[in-house]
Amino acid sequence: MKNVRIALLGTKFMGKAHSNAFSKVGQFFDPKASAVMSVICGRDPVATRDMAGRFGWHEASTDWKAVVRRKDIDLVDVATTGNTHKEMVLAAALAGKHILCEKPLANTLAEARAMLAAVKKAKVLHMVGFNYRFVPAIALAKRMIEQGKLGRIFEWRSQYLQDWIVDPNFPMVWRLDKKQAGSGALGDIAAHSIDLARYLIGEFDEVVGMTQTFIKERRVPGTGKRALVTVDDAAAFLARFKNGVMGTFEASRFATGRKNSNGFEIYGEKGSLSFNLEDLNRLKFYDRTEKAGEQGFKDIMVTEASHPYTGNWWPSGHIIGYEHTFVHEAFELLNSLAAGKMPVPNFEDGVRCQEVLEAVERSAKSRRWIKISSV
Amino acid sequence: MKNVRIALLGTKFMGKAHSNAFSKVGQFFDPKASAVMSVICGRDPVATRDMAGRFGWHEASTDWKAVVRRKDIDLVDVATTGNTHKEMVLAAALAGKHILCEKPLANTLAEARAMLAAVKKAKVLHMVGFNYRFVPAIALAKRMIEQGKLGRIFEWRSQYLQDWIVDPNFPMVWRLDKKQAGSGALGDIAAHSIDLARYLIGEFDEVVGMTQTFIKERRVPGTGKRALVTVDDAAAFLARFKNGVMGTFEASRFATGRKNSNGFEIYGEKGSLSFNLEDLNRLKFYDRTEKAGEQGFKDIMVTEASHPYTGNWWPSGHIIGYEHTFVHEAFELLNSLAAGKMPVPNFEDGVRCQEVLEAVERSAKSRRWIKISSV
Amino acid sequence: MKNVRIALLGTKFMGKAHSNAFSKVGQFFDPKASAVMSVICGRDPVATRDMAGRFGWHEASTDWKAVVRRKDIDLVDVATTGNTHKEMVLAAALAGKHILCEKPLANTLAEARAMLAAVKKAKVLHMVGFNYRFVPAIALAKRMIEQGKLGRIFEWRSQYLQDWIVDPNFPMVWRLDKKQAGSGALGDIAAHSIDLARYLIGEFDEVVGMTQTFIKERRVPGTGKRALVTVDDAAAFLARFKNGVMGTFEASRFATGRKNSNGFEIYGEKGSLSFNLEDLNRLKFYDRTEKAGEQGFKDIMVTEASHPYTGNWWPSGHIIGYEHTFVHEAFELLNSLAAGKMPVPNFEDGVRCQEVLEAVERSAKSRRWIKISSV
Amino acid sequence: MKNVRIALLGTKFMGKAHSNAFSKVGQFFDPKASAVMSVICGRDPVATRDMAGRFGWHEASTDWKAVVRRKDIDLVDVATTGNTHKEMVLAAALAGKHILCEKPLANTLAEARAMLAAVKKAKVLHMVGFNYRFVPAIALAKRMIEQGKLGRIFEWRSQYLQDWIVDPNFPMVWRLDKKQAGSGALGDIAAHSIDLARYLIGEFDEVVGMTQTFIKERRVPGTGKRALVTVDDAAAFLARFKNGVMGTFEASRFATGRKNSNGFEIYGEKGSLSFNLEDLNRLKFYDRTEKAGEQGFKDIMVTEASHPYTGNWWPSGHIIGYEHTFVHEAFELLNSLAAGKMPVPNFEDGVRCQEVLEAVERSAKSRRWIKISSV
Repeated sequence: MKNVRIALLGTKFMGKAHSNAFSKVGQFFDPKASAVMSVICGRDPVATRDMAGRFGWHEASTDWKAVVRRKDIDLVDVATTGNTHKEMVLAAALAGKHILCEKPLANTLAEARAMLAAVKKAKVLHMVGFNYRFVPAIALAKRMIEQGKLGRIFEWRSQYLQDWIVDPNFPMVWRLDKKQAGSGALGDIAAHSIDLARYLIGEFDEVVGMTQTFIKERRVPGTGKRALVTVDDAAAFLARFKNGVMGTFEASRFATGRKNSNGFEIYGEKGSLSFNLEDLNRLKFYDRTEKAGEQGFKDIMVTEASHPYTGNWWPSGHIIGYEHTFVHEAFELLNSLAAGKMPVPNFEDGVRCQEVLEAVERSAKSRRWIKISSV
Repeated sequence: MKNVRIALLGTKFMGKAHSNAFSKVGQFFDPKASAVMSVICGRDPVATRDMAGRFGWHEASTDWKAVVRRKDIDLVDVATTGNTHKEMVLAAALAGKHILCEKPLANTLAEARAMLAAVKKAKVLHMVGFNYRFVPAIALAKRMIEQGKLGRIFEWRSQYLQDWIVDPNFPMVWRLDKKQAGSGALGDIAAHSIDLARYLIGEFDEVVGMTQTFIKERRVPGTGKRALVTVDDAAAFLARFKNGVMGTFEASRFATGRKNSNGFEIYGEKGSLSFNLEDLNRLKFYDRTEKAGEQGFKDIMVTEASHPYTGNWWPSGHIIGYEHTFVHEAFELLNSLAAGKMPVPNFEDGVRCQEVLEAVERSAKSRRWIKISSV
Repeated sequence: MKNVRIALLGTKFMGKAHSNAFSKVGQFFDPKASAVMSVICGRDPVATRDMAGRFGWHEASTDWKAVVRRKDIDLVDVATTGNTHKEMVLAAALAGKHILCEKPLANTLAEARAMLAAVKKAKVLHMVGFNYRFVPAIALAKRMIEQGKLGRIFEWRSQYLQDWIVDPNFPMVWRLDKKQAGSGALGDIAAHSIDLARYLIGEFDEVVGMTQTFIKERRVPGTGKRALVTVDDAAAFLARFKNGVMGTFEASRFATGRKNSNGFEIYGEKGSLSFNLEDLNRLKFYDRTEKAGEQGFKDIMVTEASHPYTGNWWPSGHIIGYEHTFVHEAFELLNSLAAGKMPVPNFEDGVRCQEVLEAVERSAKSRRWIKISSV
Repeated sequence: MKNVRIALLGTKFMGKAHSNAFSKVGQFFDPKASAVMSVICGRDPVATRDMAGRFGWHEASTDWKAVVRRKDIDLVDVATTGNTHKEMVLAAALAGKHILCEKPLANTLAEARAMLAAVKKAKVLHMVGFNYRFVPAIALAKRMIEQGKLGRIFEWRSQYLQDWIVDPNFPMVWRLDKKQAGSGALGDIAAHSIDLARYLIGEFDEVVGMTQTFIKERRVPGTGKRALVTVDDAAAFLARFKNGVMGTFEASRFATGRKNSNGFEIYGEKGSLSFNLEDLNRLKFYDRTEKAGEQGFKDIMVTEASHPYTGNWWPSGHIIGYEHTFVHEAFELLNSLAAGKMPVPNFEDGVRCQEVLEAVERSAKSRRWIKISSV
């Protein structure tokens, strides 16, 4: 495949991030296949045409079902709310399309498993949008761990903290409704931490966790009414990994002052790493094999030509931002499609993440440790 | 009481910290009673005499049992290993002495409760050495919380991370032996986090936790043998406080690169606080009531005359260190003794902390949430 | 003007930055005129066609002289080396084109003045590419200063530190040759600091400075020869501004470990600001009017909807990077062209900056303070 | 000499810092001679007796002239205002006493030279109180430079920033009066930067500088009057060192928000160092000889047993403060006296510093570069 003809479903936050990624990937990278921005689909015809015009989509459509069946489409990119993923993915798989699906893969484990079964049956290539794997500093962390720079790993600590609903007057929105969003901070942002932990540490063995909804009701905009918040505002859990590493996780939308604080620390026998998405161009590294008296956390500015992805952008010290992670993701996806190889992370990773999310939810109810069940 | 005649039991790390505190408190503060450094007791006569000479203790003794009964002693300061606390405190209480006891109060909850009963029966004044309450930045945090600057509090996150035993060749020492130390990272350092959480947030309701011993055996110095490590290398737990706050705790001696990283974050409706003992002269404060667009975590250098304790030291910006916390503790203790009032924190706080420690240990075994039992 | 038909001269670092800017500005912003990417010009036909293909330029050309005379071009964007700016700008002005010219405006003050005279005579609109004025945090700093949040300003400190030639084996390149580059660290990077100082503080009155070339000769790649380095490796100068503010400036390409450390601090009676380009999403603000005991440098994450430019990108906490400054610059340029108004900063600012650069060079030779001469 | 019998002149800020140092040095260190706290002298008899009582001085006196002649005094410690140093030092030298004198050595170069001549003539040992040489992180920096870890050094940047007089209502005090203080920010705090530069880099060759007094008059407390401020509020200068290093210096009492920000950066061919006194337990080190892609500024927490001085205090990660620098200084002084060796830094260093200060003042007047004259 030299040209990948793409249909994007979704025009909001993720629709914008993916549109940007496909329009930029060929400007700064040389993927083995080119992204052809064929159709963008959304419910609002005006907004969809506007997005098409801005980002160079050849067509705009409000009929995703028709679009995913078109012969001139190679890849369906699902960037809508979680409750719609399953239907779209099943339709795309049935039509024999390769699929990129935003995270979390689905709102429930059952849905996620059905989606994985569908793409396997259809023998199409699939990817799940855990874009933070493509932060250069995180890709560097992965490389350093694989090189053995941390030695045996003992502990993982992570938190993903935001504060956008801490105001009691913040209204009811779809992300606070379990039917549409599946879960709250847990599925939305802890999902990222779980995927990064799987990427950098390994598979989960068991978890014990808690969830909390601090503000139980919120006003419904444009009505005089109030609605129940049916998802978690915050979640925390402890984990054991199969390799014996212990882990802690925390996700919150009530961490006043933290805007997008997706951070982790990894402690190993030979060294340690620390990262935070609010400073995504930096990776902190402590090397215990250095000379005594000269050890310390090193602030690596991950903008060098020798670092993953960064050589394609700007000279060292000229930082990149959040949106670039999607460009790197698109680059890897296009290369995989060109080679006919399965992208990473894919729906298997999506299901694995969902297994952990579900285990945390079950643990929060049963108040016990829960083993991670495998597919 | 104008002069408090002190007998210090202990000559090692804490013996040194307390000796320094009593020798400095009158230099920089004006406590309502003076510290008279009467006797220091230790097992090694040479080392004890050396400590007496350095810090100005009038006498050195190897017979603590005799010392605590002396009529010319007002305060017994127990700064020995945890397994000796109970015997010493009971003897001192029986002799009618006021008591300062290092933390953790005891190695078990049962011991701690017996000690509290003894001091209550003896009607003596008592204090437990949670010295970090006397870090100026933490005292400032307390003041700000009481002033309502955080509003309703949602979350507490804490970790106390060290790395002094991460080397597999580090030998067996008393702190790794359950009989002497009671527990590992949990009792030694999580105890501090628990006390700070009680101080700043409130009483615990329930916990669920895990402990881990990464290196199970270590060589015994001077022998060809290896001994079992019988305490935890790391511990983590989740908590619910009685006021609905959710909390996470982590303590580790395997966090490579972290030397004395005793940190916490508190997230509230109106604002947030963040602290780390490695930068103990600073408190970070986020104020959500400030004008939009000008909010951010403020780095308050807690060295101003208007801050707790700091006005007695040096001009602003001239930082103080770890040992100063003990001086402030001594100052508060002397004032309480002078007024005949119960110091804070006292053995009640020691027992409360022990209740949480025990609940975490029980939870780690039973793999369930455990309610905190009260005395 | 509803569509601005652009001819870009230059295909390297700045050519890439400008191509990216014009391709993105309409995706994320709604400028009052649209950027039409008509022609890109370069010396290497293959590379130029490649750039055209990547970024969507309608045509590629190696004949800039013909291009700047074309009737279907509205704006000539000069993004080549400094020694070519004058010829290109004069030709574009003669052809009646509006002009965007990269900084420094020219390699000498005389050239810069000739260029300003030419655009004035031609009555065209002109802009100089001091892109850092369009960093959101710097635009916020400007806003805060104008709101009086700093009160009377006392001091400006700035440094622009890089380290890309610290290795003695780094070869001779055009930027180290006075004929092509005009000057070294001074014109290349101190020029940015000078412009920011003019933007945020005001006009310069006098300067005294020094320049230094640490490595006098470097090997010429592909030859056995060595060539003289004819520009400064580092420069430093003191300044007095017309409003009495005192300032310090330092620029270096020998600051080992600093990659793109363009920082400044501004100290005022009521408050202070601090910024560094390596963390361009943050602005530090100290407010002396806050309550005593709660003052501290506030770390404002400049990613809120209420901040300049950032609302058009991503939710708060999702950081942007270096390249975005050029998008904002393009946005302002297009708006000015649409309104027929002179952009800011323009060639007047380019000349003012050049006056300071020249004064520093004269001071370094005469070893005295030099008054800034005006046009 | 086994016991050094000390007479301390001064009871204020420095009197307190020195009293503390002599009372602590034997507690935590084993100097080869012991400090005997014989007499403290001050003008106010009550305050002087109070200081004696607090810190354990055997006697208090208001007659320093009598004290410095006493046979039972070995060391005179001059910790008074700069305008009194010369008279006291000359008297002490005449009496054959060893001398520790606070910095700056004197208010003028002429005085400083007279003092150096006097101690040379008297053949006594002498030290000048540049206490920051004894910050562990700075002593570590010295060690690393001597080990060649920075290679050839290119640049020194320093600033010493405070803000205690930025309020226009701050009253006239002795430090703002040239007759008593000699100079303002320059002599008070830039003197520290100059000494550290000499210690870490080498001798100065020439300087060019400026001084500024932002607020010309201040109210005299307790009167209705206003007095002229006759010293500089801020000073900045550029320097060339004899070894070719270029340097920048800035000192200010108007840097709003900076409390005691005594920082420097050193850039070398192989590596760089960065330090700030507000975080005095940390040294930042960039090592350009490390593997590409893993370089970064390393945050060395200078609290390890392998670091200078810190092994005598507390376990790693338990930070020390400002006052400890004086304890280390006392330790070095006592060792030198015990060995009959000249301490470092001594009055030669005091004079060298004064030469630079005077050159900066002359340059500020003559508006030209000034060569440093030697004794």
